[in-house]
Amino acid sequence: MDSSLFQYALRMGDTTLILSQRLSQWCGHGPALEEDLALTNLSLDLLGQARLWLTLAGEVEGAGRDEDRLAYLRDAPEYRNYLLAERPNGHYGDTIARQFLFDVWHYFLLQGLASSADERVAAIAAKSLKEVTYHARRSADLVVRLGDGTELSHGRMQAALEEIWFYVGELFVDDDVVADLAGRGIAVSHEALWPAWHEHVAAVLQEATLRLPDAADARHPAYQGGPSGRHTEALGYVLAEMQHLQRTYPGASW
Amino acid sequence: MDSSLFQYALRMGDTTLILSQRLSQWCGHGPALEEDLALTNLSLDLLGQARLWLTLAGEVEGAGRDEDRLAYLRDAPEYRNYLLAERPNGHYGDTIARQFLFDVWHYFLLQGLASSADERVAAIAAKSLKEVTYHARRSADLVVRLGDGTELSHGRMQAALEEIWFYVGELFVDDDVVADLAGRGIAVSHEALWPAWHEHVAAVLQEATLRLPDAADARHPAYQGGPSGRHTEALGYVLAEMQHLQRTYPGASW
Repeated sequence: MDSSLFQYALRMGDTTLILSQRLSQWCGHGPALEEDLALTNLSLDLLGQARLWLTLAGEVEGAGRDEDRLAYLRDAPEYRNYLLAERPNGHYGDTIARQFLFDVWHYFLLQGLASSADERVAAIAAKSLKEVTYHARRSADLVVRLGDGTELSHGRMQAALEEIWFYVGELFVDDDVVADLAGRGIAVSHEALWPAWHEHVAAVLQEATLRLPDAADARHPAYQGGPSGRHTEALGYVLAEMQHLQRTYPGASW
Repeated sequence: MDSSLFQYALRMGDTTLILSQRLSQWCGHGPALEEDLALTNLSLDLLGQARLWLTLAGEVEGAGRDEDRLAYLRDAPEYRNYLLAERPNGHYGDTIARQFLFDVWHYFLLQGLASSADERVAAIAAKSLKEVTYHARRSADLVVRLGDGTELSHGRMQAALEEIWFYVGELFVDDDVVADLAGRGIAVSHEALWPAWHEHVAAVLQEATLRLPDAADARHPAYQGGPSGRHTEALGYVLAEMQHLQRTYPGASW
């Protein structure tokens, strides 16, 4: 088994799955009908991507675990998502700040992965990139509208950015898994994504009249650990809700 | 098996268990340290009472189900709690409004049950009554402080009362279970608790400068169904969180 690829596929699958689950919690609670639908569609896009990554993880592992077993029958310490994905939704501005910083990273990452030496990774990335290109454009637009909106929305967006900012650094860490895969041309260096990400984020925040938080604040190791299974308290609650049906009726099918 | 007594013990056990679980969600989030501790202690009192009722239910049923199996291995439609107990916490005023209306009912009910022809019911009621006497005094005190507080707290308490009010009527329904047990001197008529409850609530609300909602609004059948297993959406989320560990690690013990 290609252990690094298994870990990486899990990481991408778990990150998109948990963020999808978070976004689905907005369903019926959006601040406007259009936003409610948009967040639900975003959630569904990420869920579709999660299925592809988790199916790949199951194939690479070769132990007979499919997307459902991986999604529903692992507990928090076995989850490999980046911490950013599990952070609470907060208010709408918090959700948009989290989404914007993630989307831009996701976009540059998938651009790199689309040229992966592993055909399956390249195919998932190419398919996802079309969706994520739209996600990144949309969340940037909302950041500008809220940041350069009223005094209240500006203040809330600034605070939202500064709170989620600490969870960004982890996305750019080249741990053993990334380093191994990048060395083999299967993934790309995450560290190397930082300059493009930072430049794009800075440009959007400037247009939004928002202050760019300090880069150093994004690199604190206290806010890292998701890909190695060290999660915040929040993930347990997400899994409890997400896994409830499968745990209560084991093996149930429709 | 005494089916009515089984149902009644489940109803009391589930109501105290679910309300306890709801209150536990305040742990670490109370508006002041004293309130945080008070809500947690209240939650623990109700949890202790739930254990007694559910153990009794298991004994009466005689099928080998103990308090843990009853608490952790039933799904929402098998739960028998009054709907009031499962309603979301909302803000602190919402929680206090729910608690006050419940505590007063609980107090008068336990006074009656303490003279139950069934010794086990009488013992649980007598033990619980000491705690609930304190609960009812404390929640009434808070209703007065918030109702007769600032304009903001007054408005919020009034709105909180009017929202939870619809879920009160169910507590005073003499369904087949109550009627059977009351006829045998094991329980008391719930309908008969209304005048004392209403008089006490009215007096406290008057002191709190709050408007007493219309009695008729508390009797709408659309807001009833808990004791027969027809619950609001909220219960599923409570159970998902409460049962997560036991469902994930079936049969696990400490």
